[in-house]
Amino acid sequence: VGSFQPSEHQHVRYNPLRDDWVLVSAHRMRRPWQGQVEKPPQEDVPRCDLSNPLCPGAVRANGEVNPQYTNTFVFDNDFPALQPDAPEPDACNHPLFRAASARGVCKVMCFHPWSDLTLPLMSLAEIRAVIDKWAELAVELGASYPWVQIFENKGAMMGCSNPHPHCQVWASNFLPNEAQLEDRTQRQHLQERGVPLLLEYAQLEAQRKERLVVENADWLVVVPYWAVWPFQTLLLPRRQVCRLQELSDSERDSAPTGPRLGADCGHWQLHAHYYPPLLRSAAVRKFMVGYEMLAQAQRDLTPEQAAERLRALPEEHYRVRPR
Amino acid sequence: VGSFQPSEHQHVRYNPLRDDWVLVSAHRMRRPWQGQVEKPPQEDVPRCDLSNPLCPGAVRANGEVNPQYTNTFVFDNDFPALQPDAPEPDACNHPLFRAASARGVCKVMCFHPWSDLTLPLMSLAEIRAVIDKWAELAVELGASYPWVQIFENKGAMMGCSNPHPHCQVWASNFLPNEAQLEDRTQRQHLQERGVPLLLEYAQLEAQRKERLVVENADWLVVVPYWAVWPFQTLLLPRRQVCRLQELSDSERDSAPTGPRLGADCGHWQLHAHYYPPLLRSAAVRKFMVGYEMLAQAQRDLTPEQAAERLRALPEEHYRVRPR
Ligand SMILES: O=P(O)(O)O[C@H]1O[C@H](CO)[C@@H](O)[C@H](O)[C@H]1O
Ligand SMILES: O=P(O)(O)O[C@H]1O[C@H](CO)[C@@H](O)[C@H](O)[C@H]1O
Repeated sequence: VGSFQPSEHQHVRYNPLRDDWVLVSAHRMRRPWQGQVEKPPQEDVPRCDLSNPLCPGAVRANGEVNPQYTNTFVFDNDFPALQPDAPEPDACNHPLFRAASARGVCKVMCFHPWSDLTLPLMSLAEIRAVIDKWAELAVELGASYPWVQIFENKGAMMGCSNPHPHCQVWASNFLPNEAQLEDRTQRQHLQERGVPLLLEYAQLEAQRKERLVVENADWLVVVPYWAVWPFQTLLLPRRQVCRLQELSDSERDSAPTGPRLGADCGHWQLHAHYYPPLLRSAAVRKFMVGYEMLAQAQRDLTPEQAAERLRALPEEHYRVRPR
Repeated sequence: VGSFQPSEHQHVRYNPLRDDWVLVSAHRMRRPWQGQVEKPPQEDVPRCDLSNPLCPGAVRANGEVNPQYTNTFVFDNDFPALQPDAPEPDACNHPLFRAASARGVCKVMCFHPWSDLTLPLMSLAEIRAVIDKWAELAVELGASYPWVQIFENKGAMMGCSNPHPHCQVWASNFLPNEAQLEDRTQRQHLQERGVPLLLEYAQLEAQRKERLVVENADWLVVVPYWAVWPFQTLLLPRRQVCRLQELSDSERDSAPTGPRLGADCGHWQLHAHYYPPLLRSAAVRKFMVGYEMLAQAQRDLTPEQAAERLRALPEEHYRVRPR
């Protein structure tokens, strides 16, 4: 047993945002891969296809026709997991059988009229329109709901069969588990250390640099020290920002809103999580299965190794072919 | 808005084992399925294939030749996530960058010499040999490790490309997250109510019956009231049992051991979780993706509906063809 090397020696790391641990066993990357190989993402997506319910002019499941939209387009999910008017469950008759009401709305938001684009292939102005729309929805839905979750399921591996660039926005009358967890840990950190957890963390990562993927005057992207997914990243603002709508012109967020709009949230820091399902390449995924589901998350390379690989990627997106 | 119907009206349910919530939106099952369809499991698996490293007589990655085993066969994982001798990480220099040692062992256990079987296709005597071996490993590894996790990743959807029936056994010098959570909640329940959580729960489910899938004199299988995966089930003993090795002849467990062997664990109840990845059929899976990863687990049918469907399945396994 020599001296400790994170890339050689398994260890556990603490996730202060979730108050749990991840097992890091980087030597596992040395094993030969005999497992499943996935189909690469579809490359020949037609720009416009009227049979795709997300395209301008297409007919949706409920019979409505999409407008000829030119930047973003938001509509109500036809099969929403959250609806505004579900009745209250019956009073609980036992502490092991507890139910509570869940109300909310689920919206779908197209990023662009073309199906053959994804966010990184869009122009800055087009991306800015998306961020402005997110902030608008955060204000609109946040007026009555305590939580507005914006998320994108991207690619077939993440259960998304529609290549058209889009995300979902689910607002709920409850703080979901993850938000509750992050609310508790961030609140405690501010109490104990007098500085918001993710602000302190961003400052340290900006100095240490080994987990930094990319940075500019307003934002940092890091592979967090406690990352679970091989190439998980965390987007963090450099100054304290609680909500999307607080983003300045050179910035733009998703955070506790609604009944919490007035509440003190000096502990909360706007952030975005990216959980790509990949392990070795675009075709070899990480399976979070038995041990992860029953015991604890496990990763096969260190966050520092992942950050290094991400930094080494070309600036240009792989689908922008050199001319 | 009529009166509350769990199969019609979304709601959240509390998981007392994990101290979190699941969103139940059963009306979502009505939507047409346009998503991904998976390949059915391979049906023509050869009984014996010397190129399969799990078969009797085959050569493994490390060059060893498997014995001509006739029931179970246990060996050390060639690419273990946990090894017995990793050095201690350097002392933490900041509360946001905490690491700790992780030591342990990873074993692979074949259930049977034939590759074309799975547990449900084996004879009772063969299954009993597996359970006895689990208990033996729990004693052996539990002597020095506080946690022994036995798990089976079954099928390609769960990242298992080897059809040979086998499970894994990972023992660690730490209580993994899930075990810590379940240890805390069960301990608290015993304190508050004077009866172990899962014993009280089993008794109630045995009376209520609506989530019961199958039962006998020793065991119950239920779709838990708080199930996350569509057809998740929980196997529970009828009497208090803390560890596998305590199982009587007519029963047999995985629970806190090692340094905890002597500790009071009157709160802990032996149990097994089953998390099948399926939603609608053997070929349509449930994707636990954006909302689930970032906010909260969501399910598309009620646990009661799932239990009803499971109860309605024939006793005989689908691969046992009528002659
Ligand atoms: O059985 P394997 O191939 O060693 O590994 C499999 O199970 C492990 C434990 O759940 C996961 O960490 C891996 O991602 C998965 O591929
Ligand atoms: O976008 P869809 O098809 O409504 O649904 C998808 O995202 C949801 C939220 O993460 C998941 O609950 C579903 O399992 C997934 O298929």
